[in-house]
Amino acid sequence: MSEKEFQKVTETAASAPQKPNPYGPNPADYLSNVNNFQLIDSTLREGEQFANAFFDTEKKIEIAKALDDFGVDYIELTSPVASEQSRSDCEAICKLGLKAKILTHIRCHMDDARVAVETGVDGVDVVIGTSKFLRQYSHGKDMNYIAKSAVEVIEFVKSKGIEIRFSSEDSFRSDLVDLLNIYKTVDKIGVNRVGIADTVGCANPRQVYELVRTLKGIVSCDIECHFHNDTGCAIANAYTALEAGARLIDTCVLGIGERNGIVPLGGLMARMIVAAPEYVKSKYKLHKIRDIENLVAEAVEVNIPFNNPITGFCAFTHKAGIHAKAILANPSTYEILDPHDFGMKRYIHFANRLTGWNAIKSRVDQLNLSLTDDQCKEVTTKIKRLGDIRPLNIDDVDSIIKDFHAEVSTPKLIATKREKEGTADVLDLQDEPNAKKSKQ
Amino acid sequence: MSEKEFQKVTETAASAPQKPNPYGPNPADYLSNVNNFQLIDSTLREGEQFANAFFDTEKKIEIAKALDDFGVDYIELTSPVASEQSRSDCEAICKLGLKAKILTHIRCHMDDARVAVETGVDGVDVVIGTSKFLRQYSHGKDMNYIAKSAVEVIEFVKSKGIEIRFSSEDSFRSDLVDLLNIYKTVDKIGVNRVGIADTVGCANPRQVYELVRTLKGIVSCDIECHFHNDTGCAIANAYTALEAGARLIDTCVLGIGERNGIVPLGGLMARMIVAAPEYVKSKYKLHKIRDIENLVAEAVEVNIPFNNPITGFCAFTHKAGIHAKAILANPSTYEILDPHDFGMKRYIHFANRLTGWNAIKSRVDQLNLSLTDDQCKEVTTKIKRLGDIRPLNIDDVDSIIKDFHAEVSTPKLIATKREKEGTADVLDLQDEPNAKKSKQ
Repeated sequence: MSEKEFQKVTETAASAPQKPNPYGPNPADYLSNVNNFQLIDSTLREGEQFANAFFDTEKKIEIAKALDDFGVDYIELTSPVASEQSRSDCEAICKLGLKAKILTHIRCHMDDARVAVETGVDGVDVVIGTSKFLRQYSHGKDMNYIAKSAVEVIEFVKSKGIEIRFSSEDSFRSDLVDLLNIYKTVDKIGVNRVGIADTVGCANPRQVYELVRTLKGIVSCDIECHFHNDTGCAIANAYTALEAGARLIDTCVLGIGERNGIVPLGGLMARMIVAAPEYVKSKYKLHKIRDIENLVAEAVEVNIPFNNPITGFCAFTHKAGIHAKAILANPSTYEILDPHDFGMKRYIHFANRLTGWNAIKSRVDQLNLSLTDDQCKEVTTKIKRLGDIRPLNIDDVDSIIKDFHAEVSTPKLIATKREKEGTADVLDLQDEPNAKKSKQ
Repeated sequence: MSEKEFQKVTETAASAPQKPNPYGPNPADYLSNVNNFQLIDSTLREGEQFANAFFDTEKKIEIAKALDDFGVDYIELTSPVASEQSRSDCEAICKLGLKAKILTHIRCHMDDARVAVETGVDGVDVVIGTSKFLRQYSHGKDMNYIAKSAVEVIEFVKSKGIEIRFSSEDSFRSDLVDLLNIYKTVDKIGVNRVGIADTVGCANPRQVYELVRTLKGIVSCDIECHFHNDTGCAIANAYTALEAGARLIDTCVLGIGERNGIVPLGGLMARMIVAAPEYVKSKYKLHKIRDIENLVAEAVEVNIPFNNPITGFCAFTHKAGIHAKAILANPSTYEILDPHDFGMKRYIHFANRLTGWNAIKSRVDQLNLSLTDDQCKEVTTKIKRLGDIRPLNIDDVDSIIKDFHAEVSTPKLIATKREKEGTADVLDLQDEPNAKKSKQ
């Protein structure tokens, strides 16, 4: 094929004006809250429903304080009617005087509401199942009964001068007309927020966008979203909900909750810092994420998943030679998150057969040795050859580099010593401090 | 507020026609491949770039066979130029005669292509960075150079009678006009697939939809997508790409890859079975997911994350009383995935203070004891009281239930025995077989 048969590619990169942030809010989403969202952390409610969770009072207080320090806007607590201890813990946390507002989460029932408003909370989150599944198999009530109870509970809570949210449960399997109808009703009587909940974790992002966007046209109050992660879409659904105009996202530390949980606090921060870096960095203490995750992981006896966003052990590790080369030149090439924003560090994994000479050259520099590019390529070949035979660790690579460096920098001395004493390996390493000194 | 002030809610659930699957493909996406997608598993390429990965020949063959048995359409291998062993492993896997087609992944360069076509692979995946970041800091080439190399490599690979894919790298940070231009060029000369890669894991679902949908209008070949998971959106992005008309998704077992990896095979299956149950169940051996994940987790020395879709230890565990009640009546209430589809089991976590009397009643039945509903509520109160004080295990709950059952069923005998011997606890348990017998 001749050159003229394929379409000439225009070279625009140098001259084209760059958008300030291509991952920022989509200008077409004029209702977007990507730059203006709030967090309701539910580690002490949804998180308590995680299979392994048992938080005693002291641990609850420790977690609440850590979340408050991090900067979450709301902290949601288990219903005070769940157990006696749940009620007294709720009261204790309300008395801490945290900056975050304290919420408790109850069924849409006056019995629960009467207890909740006496705990000292700043607001009450009311929920009721609206899908046919839950109406049939859980509470057995019809939509008119639901609307009546909702109005009664909402007016009661409002009369106490505290915030009230009304949420449907299993919203994505509820009849759309029923849903919009009840949200419109509760909005009219003045709820602070309505909630959408993907209780079974089945929603996909474009469904979320459509439902939130539609609801946004119907209610004037804020919209809160609660996404389970059964099908791996919780973070993406949360982001898309904000694009459509939702304002508040429910999170849990490490995403713990019923089954495999909900939107993880850390994962959502990874998503949001890409889209709204200034807002996120000014509002939340991102470098505290690791401590909070460790606190909760220890309390519920799980390990931080190896692939956890931000804090997973390899989240900032680069391995392939082609990646390492570019990362060394400019980290933005293969990194959308800056590890330093989270108090973490970048790591180039050079001790493997996929390594490249740029990564090895960088290690040579770190070791304060001096090799030419050609020498770096030569020692890289040696390293890759050993890497083909067995897993390498850093010591392996460093030894190869140091041996090689010693050979090329003082060939005569080494040769002589080897011949005389037969202890070349030891001597090579002993030579190293001098090699360092001569460079310094 | 009087009743007439709030909008009457229509009761439509009973009469409204039900959509066969509300999570199926959106009828508005007429190019959707949600029901017709293919998998390119890259555990032996992208996965080898995971920090902990070192696969010897034997392990690679074991993984390739497991993936083939599961039913993936393609298996992608590390470039044969990465190391000598990589090349010979590639040849060995090509000779296995698997049903899955074998691909290898190379830079867009004739040196690599000449080696690749000699390995016996069914196809070659070519990649080159097209973002200004990678063009500046990685290979340093302009778009015209990229187009020329692409055409040369593609025509060479095609001349060998094997499949060829051309992919940009870092597609979401590339200039859109450049991208579409080069895809159009390579489509015209007959590539089998073009690839979009979110190399840094920054894309969000609606961006993905727009790019794939646009590209779909420009090329006639299939579209393959590769999504990293740095910001937690990989699975959702893959799903949205299929909605927009992409055909193939790159996966890795447990999502292992550079940094925190790419779309996990198991997680994507969780997503897709919700949308296209018949297609997924007929094509892939879902009950093998756990074994494959264990195989790879062991090979790279990581634990299955506690919150892993499908195989995480709590993926099918229900805890809150309100959830357990409904699950016992109908699992669809709080489950979008059926654990049996994956060879897994459901578990009701009843040994905790959030438990409800329905869950306890179910346990009473499992223990083959007989209590009235009121008695179940009474014993539930006892269990919740102990659950407030300390974490409970199943034995705790069972003991409380059995004690209670013994007391209510044979109050006199127990009282007498207690007074006489002071060994009530032991006797209560010894009584149990009789209690069982009397019911059977």
